[in-house]
Amino acid sequence: MNQQTVLARPMAKDASLDRVETPALVLDLAKVDRNIARLRGHLDGLGVACRPHVKTSKSLDVARRLFPEGTGPITVSTLAEAEYFASGGFADITYAVGLSLDKIARARRLVAQGIALSVLIDTVEQAQALAAAASDGAAMPAVLIEIDCDGHRGGVLPTDPALVTIADVLRDGGVIVAGVLTHAGESYNARMGEGLAEAAEGERAAAVAAAERLRSAGHAAPVVSVGSTPTAHFARDLTGVTEVRAGVFTFFDLVMHGIGVCAVDDIAVSVLATVIGHRPKKGWILTDAGWMAMSRDRGTQRHPVDQGYGVVCDVDGQPFADVIVEDASQEHGIIKVRPGSNGILPQLPIGARVRVLPNHACATCAQHEAYHVVDGPGRAIMAQWPRMRGW
Amino acid sequence: MNQQTVLARPMAKDASLDRVETPALVLDLAKVDRNIARLRGHLDGLGVACRPHVKTSKSLDVARRLFPEGTGPITVSTLAEAEYFASGGFADITYAVGLSLDKIARARRLVAQGIALSVLIDTVEQAQALAAAASDGAAMPAVLIEIDCDGHRGGVLPTDPALVTIADVLRDGGVIVAGVLTHAGESYNARMGEGLAEAAEGERAAAVAAAERLRSAGHAAPVVSVGSTPTAHFARDLTGVTEVRAGVFTFFDLVMHGIGVCAVDDIAVSVLATVIGHRPKKGWILTDAGWMAMSRDRGTQRHPVDQGYGVVCDVDGQPFADVIVEDASQEHGIIKVRPGSNGILPQLPIGARVRVLPNHACATCAQHEAYHVVDGPGRAIMAQWPRMRGW
Repeated sequence: MNQQTVLARPMAKDASLDRVETPALVLDLAKVDRNIARLRGHLDGLGVACRPHVKTSKSLDVARRLFPEGTGPITVSTLAEAEYFASGGFADITYAVGLSLDKIARARRLVAQGIALSVLIDTVEQAQALAAAASDGAAMPAVLIEIDCDGHRGGVLPTDPALVTIADVLRDGGVIVAGVLTHAGESYNARMGEGLAEAAEGERAAAVAAAERLRSAGHAAPVVSVGSTPTAHFARDLTGVTEVRAGVFTFFDLVMHGIGVCAVDDIAVSVLATVIGHRPKKGWILTDAGWMAMSRDRGTQRHPVDQGYGVVCDVDGQPFADVIVEDASQEHGIIKVRPGSNGILPQLPIGARVRVLPNHACATCAQHEAYHVVDGPGRAIMAQWPRMRGW
Repeated sequence: MNQQTVLARPMAKDASLDRVETPALVLDLAKVDRNIARLRGHLDGLGVACRPHVKTSKSLDVARRLFPEGTGPITVSTLAEAEYFASGGFADITYAVGLSLDKIARARRLVAQGIALSVLIDTVEQAQALAAAASDGAAMPAVLIEIDCDGHRGGVLPTDPALVTIADVLRDGGVIVAGVLTHAGESYNARMGEGLAEAAEGERAAAVAAAERLRSAGHAAPVVSVGSTPTAHFARDLTGVTEVRAGVFTFFDLVMHGIGVCAVDDIAVSVLATVIGHRPKKGWILTDAGWMAMSRDRGTQRHPVDQGYGVVCDVDGQPFADVIVEDASQEHGIIKVRPGSNGILPQLPIGARVRVLPNHACATCAQHEAYHVVDGPGRAIMAQWPRMRGW
């Protein structure tokens, strides 16, 4: 489902946030590096490895900030991502979405190319299909069994008899049972950090219990993989866990700020927009960054502080107090003072530029073809980093 | 902001909805043609021209269903769209988003290439910038002045003195004042068709009043452009209007169904998904089509019938009664019976396929690189039509 349908345009040598055409996705590299160092430091202190999720950035250049040597380990959300990162040298990849049966052959091709690929399943049917495929003796991915730690989405409970059945079917079919994987997706419902240490412990306990159950049944299950950005940052003890996955921490966003994981100043991505109109009687400033540039994600809608379609900053990235993109059409954003606040609408003439911090970095970045990279303060665009997309 | 970052994969000759990799965007051509014929018939009856908005499809192939001769007139939402459609032979293009000052030079390049391009403004500042640019005597786009007919977004009121000032500044600078344009965006807040005939009349009356005001001030203002998909279908009289714009009508979606403009059976786009898991105790079926495939658009959230992230159909496009995608992660959809309904969760084993009708066709299609085209009943994919993106 990939097509080349867009035309590359070269970046000018003196490219700047003052001149690049808007809307444009901006990435502050200094913040990316700071966010990476923070989580690395925390996980180093807990003595556990990090397997970052690259579904947020979908960029080889960003992934190389995580791994300067460029080989991983990484987590991906699609096989297209696995192929893209493999083509860029990443060799240790976990595909952390339940495997669709028709994707087995494609996953095997990556293994045949020398990629250490693990796939995820949580049903006996998937195990049987993998075992049947393996009967030809050719390359197979290793398999992680998805564990449900909080009722959020997929996975088997650590106590579910299906857990051992799945592992037995795989082993009997000659497929490697790498271990278990869980994701505390309910941690996204936390606010202001409350309950996140407990969610991290619940995630750890469920994964370790499942791994121990497999080991009691004769499976080595060396991998015990946990993670979500909130729990990764709040975990106090990860005994028994071998790796932590997290994705959005590289960029952070307003949802993560509302959950209590980061400061607004940690948010490394923003959308550069230009003012195209005013409606003074309505208290509106119109820009050229609508939902096509911001995404339709309204992840802060049920937070105590609803950020609309994003927080408005000046072109240098300093937020205007209580000024948000309150509504959006496809190619129009409507800037307004947050309802009920004491914010003051800034003076922004036609042609002025702003940067908008997104609710959800994964969704906003997916609307763009490339990052316009700046490095801390200053408006010079040092590089344009492409993103991949598709499945 | 365009980059070639994806790899084309050829479509198999026997491509079918049973085999193509999921998630995949499906377009039913029979429904597209039926939807086009319906609006054309209505507007022919009212004696007014149609200038369809191609921001929904962003596809030359779809636009050629509207205009087999392939020249337009069309409406676009970005200059990248204008360039893409111009490269495909479309020669009469209205760029219907308020012009950002830094895009003037790019718009002029299209005119210099022979494209009849109109741009949209609603401030004296924009008129002054255009007049200043025109002083070099080279090609300039014609200008439409945006009229506010319902307080939805941008535009000047027909009674605003700025209307004539803008036109005077343009004329004095040697820029052609093509006329006026309005969009009844508030019509999207209608339900079950109520108030749409009145909204269409309000749109008409505002545009005609503004044009007459310009004519009284000595401007020819030949173009009187109105439109939104809801008002286009419900207008009863368009006296004084020269063209109607509408976009999503080619595909329709669940928002348009909730507004009362189409039947569910008219919706021509869907997302093909594969079942990857079950949570029987929760009443969930998990698929591989999450918000990355559906978009984050929750446009029916405040409708009497909330469709979640979309209505679930069998692989032939027949809806299961009251079965929706109730929640979505990046690459997971959670299918569930609509809360409070009498729907029954269908039996869908691991590997089964479904099609999901979207809330908002413009947003869902933007998540995909191409349409997998079917023609009415049957699962054969007759073509893969690329989409463009970017700004």
